[in-house]
Amino acid sequence: MRISIIGSGNVATHLAAAFTNAGHRIVEIWSRSPENAAILAYHVRATTVDKLSGLNPDVDVVLIAVKDDAIQDVISDLKLKDTLLAHTSGSTDLQVLMGSSENIGVFYPLQTFSKSKSVEFANIPILIEGNSPVVAERLTELADSVSAHVLQINSHKRLSLHVSAVFASNFANYLFALSKELLDRQELDFNLIRPLIAETADKVQRNDPKEVQTGPAVRNDQETIQKHIEFLQDKPELEHIYRLLSQSIINFYGKP
Amino acid sequence: MRISIIGSGNVATHLAAAFTNAGHRIVEIWSRSPENAAILAYHVRATTVDKLSGLNPDVDVVLIAVKDDAIQDVISDLKLKDTLLAHTSGSTDLQVLMGSSENIGVFYPLQTFSKSKSVEFANIPILIEGNSPVVAERLTELADSVSAHVLQINSHKRLSLHVSAVFASNFANYLFALSKELLDRQELDFNLIRPLIAETADKVQRNDPKEVQTGPAVRNDQETIQKHIEFLQDKPELEHIYRLLSQSIINFYGKP
Repeated sequence: MRISIIGSGNVATHLAAAFTNAGHRIVEIWSRSPENAAILAYHVRATTVDKLSGLNPDVDVVLIAVKDDAIQDVISDLKLKDTLLAHTSGSTDLQVLMGSSENIGVFYPLQTFSKSKSVEFANIPILIEGNSPVVAERLTELADSVSAHVLQINSHKRLSLHVSAVFASNFANYLFALSKELLDRQELDFNLIRPLIAETADKVQRNDPKEVQTGPAVRNDQETIQKHIEFLQDKPELEHIYRLLSQSIINFYGKP
Repeated sequence: MRISIIGSGNVATHLAAAFTNAGHRIVEIWSRSPENAAILAYHVRATTVDKLSGLNPDVDVVLIAVKDDAIQDVISDLKLKDTLLAHTSGSTDLQVLMGSSENIGVFYPLQTFSKSKSVEFANIPILIEGNSPVVAERLTELADSVSAHVLQINSHKRLSLHVSAVFASNFANYLFALSKELLDRQELDFNLIRPLIAETADKVQRNDPKEVQTGPAVRNDQETIQKHIEFLQDKPELEHIYRLLSQSIINFYGKP
C-alpha cells in the first residue's frame, strides 16, 4: 500500500519502519518538527510536506501517529475527501476524525515504543476500527501485513485496553524507576533487580498474575510491611505508594 | 556441602533443587507442614524430622527458608551450638539469629519464586551476610556454587534491596493483576497485554527505567488522564491508584 504518516515520534518511527519492511511504500511525512520529519523521511525514502493542507490525497492510507493531545490540532488542518484516514491512539474515539474524511478508522498498535529500541512487530496486537466494513477490512489487511495479532474492537473497548496498558506498562515501568531510585540512594546496582523484573514479567506470560503474586502484602505479613514503611519514612511519596498498594493487595486477595 | 533446610515453601523448594543440582547433599528437612516436608524430602532424597529440636547439628549449614513472620517461632525452638545457621529473608536482621548458634548468617536469594515455575538460578543475585568473616566466606562459597551474582552486604542495605524488590516485582505483578481484572470485565483477552508486559520488562534490562517512561502521565497529557479516570469512576480503588501513580509520575518527571 501507499501510506502517508503524520507524526515523527516513537509510534510513527516504528510504524514507518515496519510498513517499509513489509513492502509498503511511505509516500509523505508531515511533522510539527520539520527536522524529525526529515530524519524519518530519509530513513524510509519518503518526502516531507510543509503544510498538512499540502498532503497528497492520492494514497491508500493517511495515518495520524502523534501524541493524543495533538490529534485535535492535526485534524483541524486536515481536509481529505475520501482518502482513508486513521489515527493510532488508544484513548481517542473514532468519531473525532469525522469531518476530516468520509473514510475514517483506527489503527492502534498496543505496545510501548522507544526510539532507542527496536521491537518485534509480529507479536504486537493491533486493534482496528472503521466507520464502515470496507475501512475496517482495509486497515485489517494493512495490520495483518505487519502483525500476527489483529483484532477489530470498538472505541469503548479500546479505551479499556489502553487503561489496562497504562497499569501494566506505564505504571509498572514507573515502579521500576522508583526501585532504581531507592537502590541509587544506597549505592546498590540496579543490575541486582533486573533479573527479578525479567522473571516477574516472564512468570505472567503463562500464568494468571493473580495466581503468582508474592511478597509481604499478599501474605498480610504486617511485621515486614511495618519495617518497610519505617524504612521509607523520609520518602513520603514512596511511603504513600507503598501503603496504598499494600493495602489494595490485602483487600484484593483477602476477599474469599 | 551437607545442608539441612527448615521450610518447604517456594524458597525452600527452589533452593533445595538448586543445591542438589550443584552437587550438595540435602540432609534433613523440617516444616510446619509434615506433608510438604515429606514431598520436598522425597524429591531431593532427604529425610524429614518431626521436631526442630531433633535436627542433626552435624551438617555444614542449616538454612531457615520460612516466611518472614515465622522465623521467630522457628528460632525459639532451635538451639545449635556452633553449626552455621542462616536465614533467607530480605527484611530480617542478622541479629535475630543471635542465641541460636555461635555462627549465624544470611543467604538471601533476590528472586520471586513460585512452585509452578522453575528459574535459572545462575542469574539470581544472592546477598550474603555473616557474624564473622569465616561465616560470610562459607556462605559465599555455597552461593557461588549456584549463582554467578553473589554479594556481601549488611542488613540495612539488604532491607533497602528488599523494599526495592517489592516495588519492582510484587507491586508490578499486582498492576498486571489489575490490568487483567479490567480486561476480564470487558471480555478482552489478557494475551493482548502480555507482549506489552514482556517488552516493558525487556526495555529496562539495558536502559534506565527513567529514560524509557511512556504513557499519558509522563507527557502530562491531562485530556487522556481525565478520560481514563472517567472510565474508572465505578472502580474507586483502581481510580485511586491511577490518580496517585499518575500524579507521582508528573511530579517525578516534572522536576527540572
